[in-house]
Amino acid sequence: MSAWLDEIRWTADGLVPVVAQEAGTGQVLMVAWMNREALALTAEEGYAVYWSRSRGRLWRKGEESGHRQKVLEIRLDCDEDVVLLKVEQAGGIACHTGRHHCFYRVLKDGRWETVEPVLKSPDSIYGA
Amino acid sequence: MSAWLDEIRWTADGLVPVVAQEAGTGQVLMVAWMNREALALTAEEGYAVYWSRSRGRLWRKGEESGHRQKVLEIRLDCDEDVVLLKVEQAGGIACHTGRHHCFYRVLKDGRWETVEPVLKSPDSIYGA
Repeated sequence: MSAWLDEIRWTADGLVPVVAQEAGTGQVLMVAWMNREALALTAEEGYAVYWSRSRGRLWRKGEESGHRQKVLEIRLDCDEDVVLLKVEQAGGIACHTGRHHCFYRVLKDGRWETVEPVLKSPDSIYGA
Repeated sequence: MSAWLDEIRWTADGLVPVVAQEAGTGQVLMVAWMNREALALTAEEGYAVYWSRSRGRLWRKGEESGHRQKVLEIRLDCDEDVVLLKVEQAGGIACHTGRHHCFYRVLKDGRWETVEPVLKSPDSIYGA
């Protein structure tokens, strides 16, 4: 029943990059990584489970913040090495900075300009 | 003038993953990689230039197919390790399989199902 997982071309570290896109708005919320277990759990539980490279463990998105991602669709690209999720973003906040999404900086005149507001302070999301 | 490039957390191989999103439709077209030179050229030329890992060289998207990507916006994520491009896709075809985009397979009942049509055969795009 896990043949679909075998079709993915995992990196040497056993990971695959995953794009999370908000179903309603089309906004690209974030890009993170999954290992085989994370992707299997995502499909099974219906909520995004990533592999945290910094913490070296499974990361159920929203486990601390409550900002879970309900997964409506899982897609695979032509090279079988990138996964795309269509999600509903709980709380309307995907980014740990308290913004709607992680791509809040735009290149303008040779520098990165922040163009998205903080909707909720990280302190109030995660505790000070 | 390249301080903005220094802010990116390049991989050990000197690359950064790049999501190309169609500006008009919001469709995630593809994910590819850039090195420093590719990103600098993308900003300079206004068309997506990737680093082809399989060919080990710069890849001006559309150089063979004509399916160039005009870059309207370049964004950076919170961890400075993913780039998002808003693009106009020439020919309406981003994928080398001749489909509109690369994420044409959806997970259904434990298998990957192709749900997007081939708009133009690869043979007629690239020559037989």
